[in-house]
Amino acid sequence: MSDVPAEPSEVPAELTTLRASIDNLDRALICLLAERFRITQEVGHLKAGRGLPASDPERERRQIERLRALADEAGLDPEFAEKFLTFIVREVVRHHEQIARDRD
Amino acid sequence: MSDVPAEPSEVPAELTTLRASIDNLDRALICLLAERFRITQEVGHLKAGRGLPASDPERERRQIERLRALADEAGLDPEFAEKFLTFIVREVVRHHEQIARDRD
Repeated sequence: MSDVPAEPSEVPAELTTLRASIDNLDRALICLLAERFRITQEVGHLKAGRGLPASDPERERRQIERLRALADEAGLDPEFAEKFLTFIVREVVRHHEQIARDRD
Repeated sequence: MSDVPAEPSEVPAELTTLRASIDNLDRALICLLAERFRITQEVGHLKAGRGLPASDPERERRQIERLRALADEAGLDPEFAEKFLTFIVREVVRHHEQIARDRD
């Protein structure tokens, strides 16, 4: 995972090194997102099977509150953390609605 | 990190368990994003110091291609992986432009 991809020759060496770290973090992010969506697919089937609604605003409110606090602690802009969660949850709800439709 | 938050009593036990996994993954995602933005802040200062442009479309094209392939392998929708990277890069470019402006 530490391979440094070929860069155009005008890219400074420090930038190439930083980009290799970014690329490794992106690989980790994609794998965690894949796992998160595997779990939310399970949640979707469970909810559809029990006739529960695709979205849960109270749960989302608590998730946002928790992640904003964690982001603040980790040095990430809490506003961005909230936008990120909203972005993910929008996709998840879309999947849940699709699962519920597929069962009908 | 394994604490299961209080849920309303009508939530099925399986859902509570799945949600605890989602919450742990979200904590990991937030920490990785915090680290990614720490590194891109360094990139921003490096670029501003050398007068390099805030965005690099050729680099972004290669990142998208690589992450789409990785997403596919990990079972994540490549379209979503691309939307995710675009979402992150938009925020990064905004930071880089801010850093460049702050130096002027």
